[in-house]
Amino acid sequence: MGGEALRVLVDHPSVEVSWATSRQPGPIEERHPNLYGTSIELIHPDDAAPCDVVFMALPTETSMEVANRYLSAGSKVIDLGSAFRLRDRAVWEKVYGMTHTHWSLVEEAVYGVSELHKDEIAQADLVANPGCFSSAAILGFAPLIAKNLIDTDKLSVDGLSGTAGVGAELARAAHHPEIGNNLVAYNATGHRHTYEMEQELGSLAGSEVRVHFTPIYVPITRGILNVCRGFLTELRSRIELLDLYREYYEGHPFVQVYDLPKEPSASWQYKPYPWVSAIAGTNYCHIGLDVDEDRGSVVVFSALDSVGKGGAQVGIENMNLMFELDRKLGLTRRGMHPN
Amino acid sequence: MGGEALRVLVDHPSVEVSWATSRQPGPIEERHPNLYGTSIELIHPDDAAPCDVVFMALPTETSMEVANRYLSAGSKVIDLGSAFRLRDRAVWEKVYGMTHTHWSLVEEAVYGVSELHKDEIAQADLVANPGCFSSAAILGFAPLIAKNLIDTDKLSVDGLSGTAGVGAELARAAHHPEIGNNLVAYNATGHRHTYEMEQELGSLAGSEVRVHFTPIYVPITRGILNVCRGFLTELRSRIELLDLYREYYEGHPFVQVYDLPKEPSASWQYKPYPWVSAIAGTNYCHIGLDVDEDRGSVVVFSALDSVGKGGAQVGIENMNLMFELDRKLGLTRRGMHPN
Amino acid sequence: MGGEALRVLVDHPSVEVSWATSRQPGPIEERHPNLYGTSIELIHPDDAAPCDVVFMALPTETSMEVANRYLSAGSKVIDLGSAFRLRDRAVWEKVYGMTHTHWSLVEEAVYGVSELHKDEIAQADLVANPGCFSSAAILGFAPLIAKNLIDTDKLSVDGLSGTAGVGAELARAAHHPEIGNNLVAYNATGHRHTYEMEQELGSLAGSEVRVHFTPIYVPITRGILNVCRGFLTELRSRIELLDLYREYYEGHPFVQVYDLPKEPSASWQYKPYPWVSAIAGTNYCHIGLDVDEDRGSVVVFSALDSVGKGGAQVGIENMNLMFELDRKLGLTRRGMHPN
Amino acid sequence: MGGEALRVLVDHPSVEVSWATSRQPGPIEERHPNLYGTSIELIHPDDAAPCDVVFMALPTETSMEVANRYLSAGSKVIDLGSAFRLRDRAVWEKVYGMTHTHWSLVEEAVYGVSELHKDEIAQADLVANPGCFSSAAILGFAPLIAKNLIDTDKLSVDGLSGTAGVGAELARAAHHPEIGNNLVAYNATGHRHTYEMEQELGSLAGSEVRVHFTPIYVPITRGILNVCRGFLTELRSRIELLDLYREYYEGHPFVQVYDLPKEPSASWQYKPYPWVSAIAGTNYCHIGLDVDEDRGSVVVFSALDSVGKGGAQVGIENMNLMFELDRKLGLTRRGMHPN
Repeated sequence: MGGEALRVLVDHPSVEVSWATSRQPGPIEERHPNLYGTSIELIHPDDAAPCDVVFMALPTETSMEVANRYLSAGSKVIDLGSAFRLRDRAVWEKVYGMTHTHWSLVEEAVYGVSELHKDEIAQADLVANPGCFSSAAILGFAPLIAKNLIDTDKLSVDGLSGTAGVGAELARAAHHPEIGNNLVAYNATGHRHTYEMEQELGSLAGSEVRVHFTPIYVPITRGILNVCRGFLTELRSRIELLDLYREYYEGHPFVQVYDLPKEPSASWQYKPYPWVSAIAGTNYCHIGLDVDEDRGSVVVFSALDSVGKGGAQVGIENMNLMFELDRKLGLTRRGMHPN
Repeated sequence: MGGEALRVLVDHPSVEVSWATSRQPGPIEERHPNLYGTSIELIHPDDAAPCDVVFMALPTETSMEVANRYLSAGSKVIDLGSAFRLRDRAVWEKVYGMTHTHWSLVEEAVYGVSELHKDEIAQADLVANPGCFSSAAILGFAPLIAKNLIDTDKLSVDGLSGTAGVGAELARAAHHPEIGNNLVAYNATGHRHTYEMEQELGSLAGSEVRVHFTPIYVPITRGILNVCRGFLTELRSRIELLDLYREYYEGHPFVQVYDLPKEPSASWQYKPYPWVSAIAGTNYCHIGLDVDEDRGSVVVFSALDSVGKGGAQVGIENMNLMFELDRKLGLTRRGMHPN
Repeated sequence: MGGEALRVLVDHPSVEVSWATSRQPGPIEERHPNLYGTSIELIHPDDAAPCDVVFMALPTETSMEVANRYLSAGSKVIDLGSAFRLRDRAVWEKVYGMTHTHWSLVEEAVYGVSELHKDEIAQADLVANPGCFSSAAILGFAPLIAKNLIDTDKLSVDGLSGTAGVGAELARAAHHPEIGNNLVAYNATGHRHTYEMEQELGSLAGSEVRVHFTPIYVPITRGILNVCRGFLTELRSRIELLDLYREYYEGHPFVQVYDLPKEPSASWQYKPYPWVSAIAGTNYCHIGLDVDEDRGSVVVFSALDSVGKGGAQVGIENMNLMFELDRKLGLTRRGMHPN
Repeated sequence: MGGEALRVLVDHPSVEVSWATSRQPGPIEERHPNLYGTSIELIHPDDAAPCDVVFMALPTETSMEVANRYLSAGSKVIDLGSAFRLRDRAVWEKVYGMTHTHWSLVEEAVYGVSELHKDEIAQADLVANPGCFSSAAILGFAPLIAKNLIDTDKLSVDGLSGTAGVGAELARAAHHPEIGNNLVAYNATGHRHTYEMEQELGSLAGSEVRVHFTPIYVPITRGILNVCRGFLTELRSRIELLDLYREYYEGHPFVQVYDLPKEPSASWQYKPYPWVSAIAGTNYCHIGLDVDEDRGSVVVFSALDSVGKGGAQVGIENMNLMFELDRKLGLTRRGMHPN
């Protein structure tokens, strides 16, 4: 997550990278071969002076203290971790299995889904960047919930994640001989991101909602596809819902409603739903959908990159908002095709 | 599908392969390099004489006529395609977009899920081998439906499929530059296999059911993981449901209820749900599950190989039953690990 | 190749994209979902007016005529194909199996390896962009040949290529069920790019050289790793050769000599050779090497992206040179990690 | 390696598995989900009694002592590790960086390439199973060296390996986010297997040979493709060499000389060289080749599975020989296609 923030920040026209830290200092290319030649040196955390804005990608227990230190020194802070995301303390402490040492910071933190909280983010000193699965699910369901079109008790999400989501630490579920030609479900019920989804979608609904969420690692490196299924309380056609989504996200440049016709032009066998590969490495979220009119259900596909729009890059989008820069600055490069 | 049948049949102790056909005759290794040196020659369909049992992996419109021809000549027929799977003619003709030319054969065909129809298969001359996604969903939901524990109106299935499911014909959705690091949803509502699931599960339920099914290609070669979610009408714990599943599948050697404890032994970070890679290439179906007791839902993972237990190999299991052979003959080889 | 050129050009600060053509006109996102929302329309080739510079990614037989047409109309032309790469007409006609219809254009074309021909490119109206494998091999061997340190009769190259190298057209070697967990060698001797390597390296050597080149598709999407092996005519250490390479490529920002120490810092188990994933999607070429002092051989790893530094992006680098722009403009974005 | 031995042995008609050991005892399915339901229990090494034959997949320093113990107790031993492979003590101790504690065992061990040492293996009590890359290279070059057709000073091998070769222990080079879409060269010169290749090929040549070997991890799970290149001392055509190879391996059922014609039948675009996927999971080695008549070089493709014919399964083939069983028993199952 930290490496991705650096990769995009070194190319950002209004940013100068002051430092990057690691508990194991050294040249950046030993960790991130893609940054070979950028001459960034990883320094020890104790050697890092306050600056305009600090991105944090730290263990939860460390984040609380470090955020407090930099905020007190006048830096703005964008936390890419989970210390400040949930507004119910009892829930947070149960989910993360620890006592929160700086709860007052949660009260001033803004949850960093820019499409829902743009104005508050612009005013914030502390942004709690959302979880990757959470972002995709919230963006996927928000228009339906805002319009009261869906049974909020039975919101179903299967989150298919590339292994970038595992992080840099070695883990059996990311050992290539195990996952390279495999699919690995984990935390099949009650995954931590469930609570973020329920908080934000419940807030939109104005009442409690239930999200039934299961994450699954798939053998791609980057990107998440959330398959969001719900049961319509009033029937709408695919075309009507695509219109609704486009309208809902108007003015938000990084959510693109993927409204290709279901009958492709004869010459090219595309599928009319979003592709993870198309948004990997970017700050874009592609959303598409379909309606089963016979059975009364809707399926929404929400694709984003767990360390892009679902992580470090949306953090940079939030930084742009916090510093009154063009929201898109440094973030417009398109994904690769093929990828 | 035909190649997989051959691969297992050449090693089956009670089988002699008489012939294999192709519209483009030639040495088998030009099509199937894994069969190099088996000296099977692909012959023209017109040169294929009747024999004890014929496996068909043909286009639907061809299957109807060919099945009729071999049945009339006294062969038993195992159709790996979709010509004889649905018992409602109007539904079949709508779903497949053609007139059925031999509907009387459908009436004598047995739907080849051996766990549900073992005795009828043993008596059958014509087996309609089930669709791959259908098999996984039916085996995944059957115990819950048989025990009346689940809301049958909201059966949700996301079917994650390796690209073997695409078949041998070139297709954009299987072009490696497009899919190699990607996830491709398709036929997001109303996929043909939905109707098989509704037929068989409805028959178990004794009433109409609704299956909300979406298939997604993932960049593995073999295997399917169906993520089946439902809403419990009576709460049961994970342990209780695992017991129920084990009991339901007792005596059925190829469905294995994967009941690893959720807290693994300290030394090995396994996940307690089935792995697709473990059953790829085999006739095994691994089923695991979890219950979200807070939210009242169950998620069932049903993993099988689309051309193994979901295709050619279950066809061979059915052949064993039809010829009063040991049901397991030629089918016990375990999957690879790693794979 | 055309899609990649567009992807980078739409973000290039000194470029306005006038048009893009296809024999099957339509919205760009049907072909390139990553360009969703860029509002580029694919127009028919006949509707494309001359402009400052034309990038061509066309079949060879078409390129010759089209290049001539645009050059005559005053456009500069960068051919991403193979029509103008070889300077020996007899060799070209044998290798490509056709008569060259505009040989005089070959005489004015410059071979577009910017590290060897920077000044000529700046003066050129027609650039023959090099083949992907050729670029990697030429950059990999050039310093050793320039210093006369290697047996030029036995230059060995195994070219490992992602499937982007296959192109957009469906092909069995890129059918995911065949290649997804496989390695596919092809054209094991005498591949067309061999002749480009021999032309350019022979020119550096001042005498004929022999390149023994074998390409192999591997199941990654983007990127090439050329494993270049040779036999030293004078022994040099790894460190000495890395110094030589760094010196040779000084001032060339897109070739990075990857000189990580062989003994990594204790905390991170990196490998000291270039990673394909680090340069995928970019215009960088990472070169690393090792010497077998006991056996007198050197192995050079040359990694680039077949449609980046090995294709469309080096075309844009050449465009920058041709129009006296900063050579690096629009090309500095780093690759992803992970990727 | 141990898991693969078990997988094949539980299905071997003349074998009863007495025990399997682990330093962390427990149910087999926690390690090997593919063996779910086989009711093998992993026991502590101290609880393992001598039996007819012991397969060892242990750290080198442990193997020496354990082999001695079981041999003394009258068991035959097949060592899947590297303790007994090299016949030159000084070389072994340099390469493995330790003192050999039971060198006398090396003197009675037979190097387990069955195609070269079949009769000695049949008489052996201790078989030193060869390294995976070594097997592929030795089988690839043997016929050319035996016929004195190749420059033995410049034998070049690039070994492309799936990540099964990394083993079960977590490692950065096998972390999916790093390798999933990447190629990772390592030990670019002087890899340990080099010395096995030089020992066996030198013995065939009757003089010292030099192998220039570089291994590279590629993102497949199983299988190795060795790309072996050499310079012919007398020109031979592809057809002549294929004949030579077929003759050389006559009577050896597990080496298949892959002699498909270079011009495929029109309808199927196969490549005429071996596929790794076709032999993954099996005891087959597929060998193909091509000759560059213009440049005087030959390239041999040797494909096998590092834990199949390059590991555990050839160990079982050797067991069959040692116990006068049919050499092919339990080993004839073909690989998958697709795979």
